[in-house]
Parts: sequence; C-alpha cells; structure tokens
Amino acid sequence: MSTPEILTTRVGIVGGGPAGLMLSHLLAKAGVDSIVVEKRDHETIRTTHRAGILEHGSVSMLVDSGVSDRVLREGHRHEGIDLRFGGVSHRLDFTDLVGEAVWLYPQNEVFVDLAAARERDGGQVFWSVTDTAVLDQTTDTPKILFTDAQGQAREIHCDILVGADGSQGVCKWSIPQDQRVDNFVEYPFAWFGILCEAPPSADELIYCNSEHGFALISQRDANIQRMYFQCDPNEDVNAWSEEAIWAELQKRLDGPDGFQLKQGRIFDKTVLRFRSYVCEPLRYGNMFLAGDAGHTVPPTGAKGLNLALADVRVLFEGIDSYYSTGSRDLLDAYSDRALQRIWKAQNFSYWMTSMLHHRADATPFERQRQLGELAGVVASRHGSAYLAEAYTGWPTA
Amino acid sequence: MSTPEILTTRVGIVGGGPAGLMLSHLLAKAGVDSIVVEKRDHETIRTTHRAGILEHGSVSMLVDSGVSDRVLREGHRHEGIDLRFGGVSHRLDFTDLVGEAVWLYPQNEVFVDLAAARERDGGQVFWSVTDTAVLDQTTDTPKILFTDAQGQAREIHCDILVGADGSQGVCKWSIPQDQRVDNFVEYPFAWFGILCEAPPSADELIYCNSEHGFALISQRDANIQRMYFQCDPNEDVNAWSEEAIWAELQKRLDGPDGFQLKQGRIFDKTVLRFRSYVCEPLRYGNMFLAGDAGHTVPPTGAKGLNLALADVRVLFEGIDSYYSTGSRDLLDAYSDRALQRIWKAQNFSYWMTSMLHHRADATPFERQRQLGELAGVVASRHGSAYLAEAYTGWPTA
Repeated sequence: MSTPEILTTRVGIVGGGPAGLMLSHLLAKAGVDSIVVEKRDHETIRTTHRAGILEHGSVSMLVDSGVSDRVLREGHRHEGIDLRFGGVSHRLDFTDLVGEAVWLYPQNEVFVDLAAARERDGGQVFWSVTDTAVLDQTTDTPKILFTDAQGQAREIHCDILVGADGSQGVCKWSIPQDQRVDNFVEYPFAWFGILCEAPPSADELIYCNSEHGFALISQRDANIQRMYFQCDPNEDVNAWSEEAIWAELQKRLDGPDGFQLKQGRIFDKTVLRFRSYVCEPLRYGNMFLAGDAGHTVPPTGAKGLNLALADVRVLFEGIDSYYSTGSRDLLDAYSDRALQRIWKAQNFSYWMTSMLHHRADATPFERQRQLGELAGVVASRHGSAYLAEAYTGWPTA
Repeated sequence: MSTPEILTTRVGIVGGGPAGLMLSHLLAKAGVDSIVVEKRDHETIRTTHRAGILEHGSVSMLVDSGVSDRVLREGHRHEGIDLRFGGVSHRLDFTDLVGEAVWLYPQNEVFVDLAAARERDGGQVFWSVTDTAVLDQTTDTPKILFTDAQGQAREIHCDILVGADGSQGVCKWSIPQDQRVDNFVEYPFAWFGILCEAPPSADELIYCNSEHGFALISQRDANIQRMYFQCDPNEDVNAWSEEAIWAELQKRLDGPDGFQLKQGRIFDKTVLRFRSYVCEPLRYGNMFLAGDAGHTVPPTGAKGLNLALADVRVLFEGIDSYYSTGSRDLLDAYSDRALQRIWKAQNFSYWMTSMLHHRADATPFERQRQLGELAGVVASRHGSAYLAEAYTGWPTA
C-alpha cells in the first residue's frame, strides 16, 4: 500500500453534487480555499435525471454568485401550478399571490453549471474517488481519506469538514449514534416516474389528486417530458408496458374538461421511494452536514435541491464569518438556523404529500377531509398564498 | 293508550337546541310555520356549559334576525388568539390579518336568547318530550311522534322534517344504513375541562402545544373561567385533586416569560371525548339533518355551534325558496351546499387538533414536524391569515 499524499486546505468537502460545489464556489469567491471529493464521475452526475423546480432564491444564488445565467436563458419561468382534484383544475397564480415564481431547470443542469464554474475558477475537485472515509471530526484537524481516480491514496487535512455526500454518504453515518437523532418517516407509496419524447401536455406542473391516486405532470423541454404516478413502493417498472403507463396516467387526469395527455415514446422508467429524514444536529465537532447528507424530503413540492442550496447559504455565512472575524458564533449557529427552514420544508413536503396522495388505509372520512382541504386551499386567497409562498421559497432568515 | 293528537305544520323540527330554534325563528320571520320538539327541559339546556366562541357570521345571524343583541352587549369581542408552543406565545391578530373577529359568548346564552325570542314571537316549542320517533320521511307527509310533558301522545304531520336533535338524536339513525355514509374518525385523546372561580388568566384564548400535551386557556366572564388540558379518553375526573389539576395546567403553560395561571376554586370537571363525524347525505327523502345531528367536530377550533348555524342558514334558504317560489331546487341543493362548509370545517378542526395535540405514538419526526408547522404558520402572514380566516369564519357561499 502506498503512503497517502497529504493535502491541506481550510474546508474539506465530501460530495461534488450541487451542495458541495456551490459551497466550494461561494468560499472561493470569499477567498477561502476548499477541496471537493466525489465518488461519482462527472458524466454520471450530468446524466442522472433529478428534480427540476428551482425556488427564486436558488436561481438568485446561481446568477448573483456568477455561476451562470443559463437558468434564466434556458430554464422556464413558471408563474403557477395547477392543483387538480375531482377532475377539475385550479390554477394557483404565484406572481399574483406572492409576487414570486419558480424556474423549471433540471438539477443535472445546475450541476453542469456549477462544475463548469468550479473548473473555470480553478477549483480543486477530485472525481471518481473510492474508499472515502472521514475521521478526527472532533479535533482541530478533521480529515478526509480517499483513493483518487488514479489509485493514489490521499488525505485532506482541513479546519472544517463538510458532509455534502447525499443520503447514502459516509459523513452522516460517521457520527456516533449517541451523538445524533435520526428523525424519519416512511410513506406507504412511491412514484412511478417516466421520461418520454413528447411535446408538453401543459405549460405548468399539474399536481393531481384523483380517486385512482396522485399524478404529477411535469416538463423538461419542448421535446422531453417528465411524469409521475403514485405506485406501490415495490412496483416493478418492467411489468408496465407503455400502453399501461399511459392508460394509468390518463385515468388519473380524466375530467369533465376532457384533458388529454400528449403521449410519446417512454425512454426511462424509475420508482422513487418516499422517505422524510432529518439528522439532528447537522454537526459533529468540526464536521457539518448539508443537503441530502443531513435530510431528505419526499419529492412532492420539490424542496430537496432548494433546501440543499439554502443550507449552503447558511453554512457559507458561518464559515466566511469565522475566517473573516475569527468568531465561531455564526458557524456554531449553523445547525439551528438551517434546521428552522428544514422543518418548515419537511412540514410543507409532508402537507403536499398527504393532501395529494391516496393511502390504501384511508377511511372515507380521511378521503373527504382531504378533498375538503383542497377545496379550502383553492377557495381561500390566504390558503393559496400560504402554499404559493412555501412552493416558491420562504424568504431567508 | 290514548289516541295521538295530530298537529299539522309546514316544518316539523326535532331538537330545540340552537340549530332547531334558530331555524324555527328564521322560518317564522319568513311566514313559514313550524313546530319544535325537544326532549330536554329548558333549564337543563340553559345550564349545560358548552363552547363559547361565535364566528362573526353567527353573531350577525343572532343580531340581524332580531333574536337579541345581548351577544354584543354581554359577550366579549376577541380580536385574536394566542398560539403558544415551546413556552413562547405568538399572537394571531385576526382584525389585522383578515379584518374580522370572534365573540366569546357561551352556547347556553345563545340558547337562552333563541328560546326567549321563540317565546316572544309565539313560537310553538314542546319541551321535555319523550318517545320521539320519526316516520314516513320519504313521503309527502313525514311525521314526528312523541309524548308531550303532560303525557299526551302527539303526532306532527309536516311537509318537511328537520333533524336538529344532536349527535345522539333519533333522526340520523332513522335513515336506513344503505341510504347514508357514516364518515368518522376517533382521536386517541380527550379534553379534561374545568370551570373555576377565578379572574381571567389572559384576555384572549391561549391554544398551547407543550411537550406535556395540549392545553386551552379560555374565559367565561370576569369571575368564571374555562380551561382544558389534553388527557386520556378514559381519564377519571374524580382521581384529580384541584392541586393536581392546577399543577398539570401550569406545567403545560410554563415558559421563559413566566406566565402564571390565576387559580381559583374548581366547581366543574368533565372529560370531552374527541370524534369527527359526517353523515352523507344530510337528507333522507323529506327529512333534512342540521348541526350535530348530521356531523360533529372535535372542539379544537370551536366550529361545532358555528357550523350548526351555518347549516341552518343554508337550510332556511332552501325551505324559504320552496314556499315562496314552489321550486325545490335550493332545498335539493341543501346537503351538497352545507357539506362544502362542513368538510372545510372538518379539515380545519382536524388541522388544529393535529397541530396542537400530542399523540402517544408520535415519532420524534412527527413531533418536530409539528413544531415546524407551528413556526411556519406564525412566521408567515399568509399562514396566519389562513388560520384566522377559518377561525373567524369563512364567508358564506
């Protein structure tokens, strides 16, 4: 075994997804050096399809920090969504309700922009690393151990270690069990997601509650669309023909307005499981967790990526403040500050999920109450604005 | 057995609580005669303590229809409530948020006003009746059978029969099981309610979520107060000393602000069980259900009496329209129209209940999400207004 090469930096970041790269980018702009390690290769992340709704605050982060304005040029500004139930569509007009909007811009495009910005600015990112481990988190010099893509063993010695390595990453699990609380809930359903070659069926997202279960009609661009329907967590995608998938989706959208999906070749089928999770605190000594490494939300309401970027904003303020003033106060406050937004977003995701999905064990009361809630939200300007404010993104604290 | 005496009227009403009396009052003003039968005596209803929060629309019904303006003179206008969690109070200012308020005015006072108005206007009300039964609901002449307080058997023959006889009444159960859907949910907790001789502890109601469970600090007047704390449905009121009750209440209100309850002699202790129920439809032939006879809500949010009066408003419009135009359209629409508000109110009551109470089986996630929801509601003007609008009463459709 070769002797590890030691690299020294201020902030060592495990995870080269949007959270890790955005943090590294913001730190570089503030003159704080960092190194990012990522187990996947660039191409794998670039081609992994993920959620595509950015809050206005997430868009501002990308544009204002000089990552790219491609989101503004190539993304689609959505000024509302369609809440559909009982076969009837109800548009929530976000700009009218709260003066904000969201952008349809896939997460992998955010990744492409961030990776390009890091490369442009000479940021140090190790792709395709293996055997990643973290240690000495509670000392003044926490360390990241890994083997680089060329097989060289390396150690990063840093002041601050950031775990941005996703829900399956090593950082969270390196926290001793008696030093963290795992809050989680599992949902008895999942989403069957497809990508298809077809023109958009609607200008904006349709969140549909039907007696056959939830469906979400989303978009990617003029030629490719993303759609989902609620399914069993153990659903086998190979058991579903294209015909059966279109029939299932169309059935959930049926209504007196005669809404018809625009169909096309389906080239991707996946099952997304639903889980809410929050690690408390988001810290262990000098290691801090950000994004999916610290918490996951179900996809209803599209909060995952936005929450990761909100974490990064708060964590960056803490780290920047530490290096510019010497005070650790803001850094020490990171976990509590981030968790405030995280729990609001957990509640929003839970609310959207419970309001829109069918539970097999739901009583007739529960079903009618759910429809009463949807009717109440769309009939009330306050209720609509409460949802719109959460969907487009709360102001930063 | 004596031969029943037959009485003929247009509208036969079973139940002389606020719903039945208000309907009879409105019908009389419109020139439609009715007869009310009630199994309890006037004194029992007058001294039965019940909820005390009236929506602005309920107050308008009493005042504008000429029942009484005593609510305006003797009731207390409340322009907000206090949502307390984590030991910290957050006031929701209803007038600022939605331009409306509620009135603290006990339900038995509403009853007193309505009974007095019916007597003043010569309304026919039979108190203390026994053996009440309804029949021929699906014919043109539905009937109410009963024995009056003097032991005389009587029959009311009417065009329209109204069941306003509460959650334990005979009307709902007279509907064949295959002609109705019983929607219900039971909650795994109850309220321990007290009446005490003490000055008010606060100017407005305090809805308190604490780690020890929910508490509600309410008022009646300058000398008598109403308070509740969440308890087990099988709690035995006699097992609780005054001292233990005050300790339990105070513990739930404790916080850094040092809030202290004003204690006094407790002269009434009851356990209120929690149940949500809706009968669908609110109709069987020419019999219509209104108020608790058709649906019950848990007390959180104080919707019970208000919903009963909202039913009466819609049912009155249907009956009045039938007699003034000959068209049954509005009467036929009663159940659907009333159910729209009822399901919104069921959802609101469910929301307030789940947001504020402890479930013994709640996971740490659920507990934190609940606090995240409360924080989100008070931090958002839209969320606060959504709650305030529901609490003070939605506009009538």
